[in-house]
Amino acid sequence: MLINVGIIGATGHTGEVLIELLLNHPNVRICRLYNSGKSSFGSCVISDVFPKFKKRLDLICKKPDYAQIKQDCDLIFLALPHTVSMKFVPKLLSLGKKVIDLSADYRFKNALIYEKFYKTKHRDKATLKQAIYGLPELNRAKIKTAKLLANPGCYPTCAILSLAPLLALNLADPDSVIIDAKSGVSGAGKKLENEYLFSEIQGDFRAYKVNTHQHAPEINQQLSKLAGKKVEVIFVPHLLPIERGILATIYLKKAAGAKLKAKSLVELYKKFYKGEPFIRIKSEGVFPRIKDVVKTNFCDIGVKDFGQSIIVIGVIDNLLKGASSQAVQNMNIMYKLPETAGLL
Amino acid sequence: MLINVGIIGATGHTGEVLIELLLNHPNVRICRLYNSGKSSFGSCVISDVFPKFKKRLDLICKKPDYAQIKQDCDLIFLALPHTVSMKFVPKLLSLGKKVIDLSADYRFKNALIYEKFYKTKHRDKATLKQAIYGLPELNRAKIKTAKLLANPGCYPTCAILSLAPLLALNLADPDSVIIDAKSGVSGAGKKLENEYLFSEIQGDFRAYKVNTHQHAPEINQQLSKLAGKKVEVIFVPHLLPIERGILATIYLKKAAGAKLKAKSLVELYKKFYKGEPFIRIKSEGVFPRIKDVVKTNFCDIGVKDFGQSIIVIGVIDNLLKGASSQAVQNMNIMYKLPETAGLL
Amino acid sequence: MLINVGIIGATGHTGEVLIELLLNHPNVRICRLYNSGKSSFGSCVISDVFPKFKKRLDLICKKPDYAQIKQDCDLIFLALPHTVSMKFVPKLLSLGKKVIDLSADYRFKNALIYEKFYKTKHRDKATLKQAIYGLPELNRAKIKTAKLLANPGCYPTCAILSLAPLLALNLADPDSVIIDAKSGVSGAGKKLENEYLFSEIQGDFRAYKVNTHQHAPEINQQLSKLAGKKVEVIFVPHLLPIERGILATIYLKKAAGAKLKAKSLVELYKKFYKGEPFIRIKSEGVFPRIKDVVKTNFCDIGVKDFGQSIIVIGVIDNLLKGASSQAVQNMNIMYKLPETAGLL
Amino acid sequence: MLINVGIIGATGHTGEVLIELLLNHPNVRICRLYNSGKSSFGSCVISDVFPKFKKRLDLICKKPDYAQIKQDCDLIFLALPHTVSMKFVPKLLSLGKKVIDLSADYRFKNALIYEKFYKTKHRDKATLKQAIYGLPELNRAKIKTAKLLANPGCYPTCAILSLAPLLALNLADPDSVIIDAKSGVSGAGKKLENEYLFSEIQGDFRAYKVNTHQHAPEINQQLSKLAGKKVEVIFVPHLLPIERGILATIYLKKAAGAKLKAKSLVELYKKFYKGEPFIRIKSEGVFPRIKDVVKTNFCDIGVKDFGQSIIVIGVIDNLLKGASSQAVQNMNIMYKLPETAGLL
Repeated sequence: MLINVGIIGATGHTGEVLIELLLNHPNVRICRLYNSGKSSFGSCVISDVFPKFKKRLDLICKKPDYAQIKQDCDLIFLALPHTVSMKFVPKLLSLGKKVIDLSADYRFKNALIYEKFYKTKHRDKATLKQAIYGLPELNRAKIKTAKLLANPGCYPTCAILSLAPLLALNLADPDSVIIDAKSGVSGAGKKLENEYLFSEIQGDFRAYKVNTHQHAPEINQQLSKLAGKKVEVIFVPHLLPIERGILATIYLKKAAGAKLKAKSLVELYKKFYKGEPFIRIKSEGVFPRIKDVVKTNFCDIGVKDFGQSIIVIGVIDNLLKGASSQAVQNMNIMYKLPETAGLL
Repeated sequence: MLINVGIIGATGHTGEVLIELLLNHPNVRICRLYNSGKSSFGSCVISDVFPKFKKRLDLICKKPDYAQIKQDCDLIFLALPHTVSMKFVPKLLSLGKKVIDLSADYRFKNALIYEKFYKTKHRDKATLKQAIYGLPELNRAKIKTAKLLANPGCYPTCAILSLAPLLALNLADPDSVIIDAKSGVSGAGKKLENEYLFSEIQGDFRAYKVNTHQHAPEINQQLSKLAGKKVEVIFVPHLLPIERGILATIYLKKAAGAKLKAKSLVELYKKFYKGEPFIRIKSEGVFPRIKDVVKTNFCDIGVKDFGQSIIVIGVIDNLLKGASSQAVQNMNIMYKLPETAGLL
Repeated sequence: MLINVGIIGATGHTGEVLIELLLNHPNVRICRLYNSGKSSFGSCVISDVFPKFKKRLDLICKKPDYAQIKQDCDLIFLALPHTVSMKFVPKLLSLGKKVIDLSADYRFKNALIYEKFYKTKHRDKATLKQAIYGLPELNRAKIKTAKLLANPGCYPTCAILSLAPLLALNLADPDSVIIDAKSGVSGAGKKLENEYLFSEIQGDFRAYKVNTHQHAPEINQQLSKLAGKKVEVIFVPHLLPIERGILATIYLKKAAGAKLKAKSLVELYKKFYKGEPFIRIKSEGVFPRIKDVVKTNFCDIGVKDFGQSIIVIGVIDNLLKGASSQAVQNMNIMYKLPETAGLL
Repeated sequence: MLINVGIIGATGHTGEVLIELLLNHPNVRICRLYNSGKSSFGSCVISDVFPKFKKRLDLICKKPDYAQIKQDCDLIFLALPHTVSMKFVPKLLSLGKKVIDLSADYRFKNALIYEKFYKTKHRDKATLKQAIYGLPELNRAKIKTAKLLANPGCYPTCAILSLAPLLALNLADPDSVIIDAKSGVSGAGKKLENEYLFSEIQGDFRAYKVNTHQHAPEINQQLSKLAGKKVEVIFVPHLLPIERGILATIYLKKAAGAKLKAKSLVELYKKFYKGEPFIRIKSEGVFPRIKDVVKTNFCDIGVKDFGQSIIVIGVIDNLLKGASSQAVQNMNIMYKLPETAGLL
């Protein structure tokens, strides 16, 4: 099978990574590249923007052309900033194209939450209902038939996968969850702001958006669904002086009267994620590090209990499992390809 | 006033930093440098070990010579690994010298805790009682007359200063404290181990000694004293790919029925630390970053409440306020010098 | 076609990278992993040494077993330290296996030069003659039929490719070549030495082996062959605080009476390397950077003349084009596969 | 003695470093801080711009006020971008103030060279003649009586000090000098440009302004003066992924018939720089590294001959000996203070 793929937002960070992945995918032909129509690059050859693609991909990248998309593409990836994706989605769906959206625009069932945290009106509420949240390990069945896939955020991917077994099995006190997360700089995209200069990041470390980050409601929405009751986490993200990777250290209390039906939490996690190609549970007493997942689609998880408290640590590559490679994993599922195609 | 200072352990990380500080101190003459007697350097010129001291300090560093110490030194800094300091302390005290010990050997009143966490016998229990814990902001009165000063650990300095106002005023639930701490690599000293190679640290981030680190009991001892009841924290340290600095993100719950006698936690902290030359409380909603304290003796703290939860973030330079410059601050107090001498 | 590959030296730096590459190669099955027989790991599962290979490759790695090799492997990669490869090569050749050696053991036609610069006796001089120097862009014809391939060093690959057009066409004064090279830390392998600690590398930069590095004679041997006369370069390598990549800034004088048969040096380079899939010549006045070749098999080159002087800058990934991916490129040529198989 | 100092350009990189130095200077009172009058900060408290100065210096920084300067300041440092300094200098001199200018505006005797390389008209040619080039080791006598001091550029400081003995003694072929220089990012000041983002610098290395950098004519001017004949160097700067420090690797040929009146080049250098407090010559065969001079005013130099070729390597901290601490050294000389005051 050969999927003809177009990318809108090809000159951004996740676009660049997506191209890199799709060039190595045995079932994909990248046939069209577009920008948002407002890119500072204008019409350009992609390998002029990213010289590393010289001799590998020399396609032109220009503003979206629906006639062309209609004729040439089976699937469109939207690697666009939040609020920009929803300008394109309705038209793309009306052309009968499958869409994988890497932005936050279709992640929330409740548009009010989106509007509050992304500080903007939602312009396409009608389509929200049909969007499928693309976390394969928890939502595979629905992804198979998705027409519009909302690819999860990076922090939510890491946090939800790390917590899912405990909340799905009602082993955790849903009011006790504290997520202390640390991310590499690429999480911020390519913003030209003073705080992302080398001289500001190198040798530094700091928290930001302390308990006010827009990924918290995304985490809450999914954990609540898993737990069958309202979960509201404390969430503090920090900025690491590295390019890629997220590590989340998560603290929680056991649910009153919780009974573990496994030898240990490690066993329980291994069972919960049995057969998952991209989840790796660390052995008893071992915790994961960022290096082992950088440039991969893996999520590595370590877990241990300390009396009434549980500590879980999860790691992913924020640009891959937290964005572009998870999008490819979702594409594989949507097209009934082997889920690991192009990803191992 | 001129203090004649000797350093035992001059070729290590904290020794190096101590020399740097004392060279700039208006009231100090570094007169003797020693190693532990087992150093791989043997007898050496200090500027051969640290070429940056060429033309600034060209003293010989050799194994300790008590006759020389007796004659030449007023005060001895011990910049030695844990378990090595206690070999020297009794003799130095018997010579009538003041001692500032940067190791953990005299930080615990209860030798059993030391023996459990440092996995070694304590060889000088008799002296433990007279050792003064050298956290100036909380123990200044006793430091003034100290003969043997136990300089605090780096994580404890950061954690205790960040939590002291809440625990001293009984505003926090003592069972709820979670300390998620992140430290630069210099915290590990100069160990030649695979995990400290550039290729292992650069681009990586990981937790270590998850809730089993030897600084936890030191934190517990001091916080319990402050709170007047037993405090037992959850403490998870992480390794940052930077040279210097600690940031501790601390989560806790308000004590049941706690009543704040201040407009805000920020006000409360400012009042608690009023007049302290090295504590800086960030404005409402602002949290500190490592860059602002690197190469200084400052501890910057941000604090905010979120309903029943409180988040405090503290930062220090682990080699300075967390070790060598705090030792100098303690020396200043012991000799009735201005507390900021050589430190601002 | 499926090539059954064995690797001796799988637990080292280039071994690790080689595994990564071969896992993605459509025509390769990694069937056996070995260490040198003296590895500190002993017999082990490779994914215990490199957790990132969990769920991707869980082969055992043990000391070499010739009976097994004879039966299972078509080709052996030697990813071993210098002086170790030559212990295995004669036996492997006698079993009829093809060998690609990533060490320096078979790079020199003259064993005396090897012995002088690697400070050891050569134990297999008889085989030297049949070894083929594996720089595909300059030696493709011979590589096709090689039984024993000597994979070039990292600095030589970068320097020779950057200089080849000028020397092959006799445009450069052979006595004028100065190579100022800068390499990431991975070039040193995984040595546990003080100078490779994070705290020694981060924030630092220094020259090493100033004009005495063992790669200089390798460069001289190949350039002399190209120029048809003796070339002796000045070569100063430096250590960059990055993981991967080499950049060589090269200064030389034009040969007396040299006549350029091209519009510019850029044109001349483009013509010389026409059709090469892994050489990219930068446009007039543009010079390459390390980022564009990291994690690729490309060599990017910029060149410009300034009156009688010429400046050439070349970049490669030292672990890939400078080691493991060049080895794969050589394998592709030896097996008549598309030269880019598994590499783009 | 107490010097009342004002700084124009206090919110920039060199301004920040200058404040840090002057706070520790025993003979300086920082009494006034100004910006260029066009700063994006407008009027501000300096410790709001640099939180690390909280509790150390809380002066207001505003646009220059000549009446205030006239009354309060003895000496003005100009820590301004090129082309901005010359707007202030004539007026400051007319008020009888001493001026140390860290920009390039008064470094050239020939305004045409300035205008060509800085691409702007020189607006104060009349004053050029009286400006003294502030390289203490080569120009101390004139600095003593300077009213307007032109503080050298960072690359020129490193290159000229590394080459001075060879050129002053006519031991080098003046046409053969190649300077391959590498600098940390702080050399570029605080420009908010895409190329200085963390994600662009980290893990990368590249040349820039290849043989076209504006510091080349400054180097040529000084070396020609030293040699008594025209010297024209090849100069290629590179960008290191570190914050601070310059290393220059310099290649040259011996002058025809040159006779060394010393046992070795190392001896010759030691003699040439005898008594200099901030020059350190490395032993035979040893070359300097950036780490040893970071945060100091030292210039470390290693030198060795290889037949007809000589290799010299020099290192400085670009923000200190290459800018702010050299300015303080010059101030010390101008005020007949010990030259090392506030600098060791």
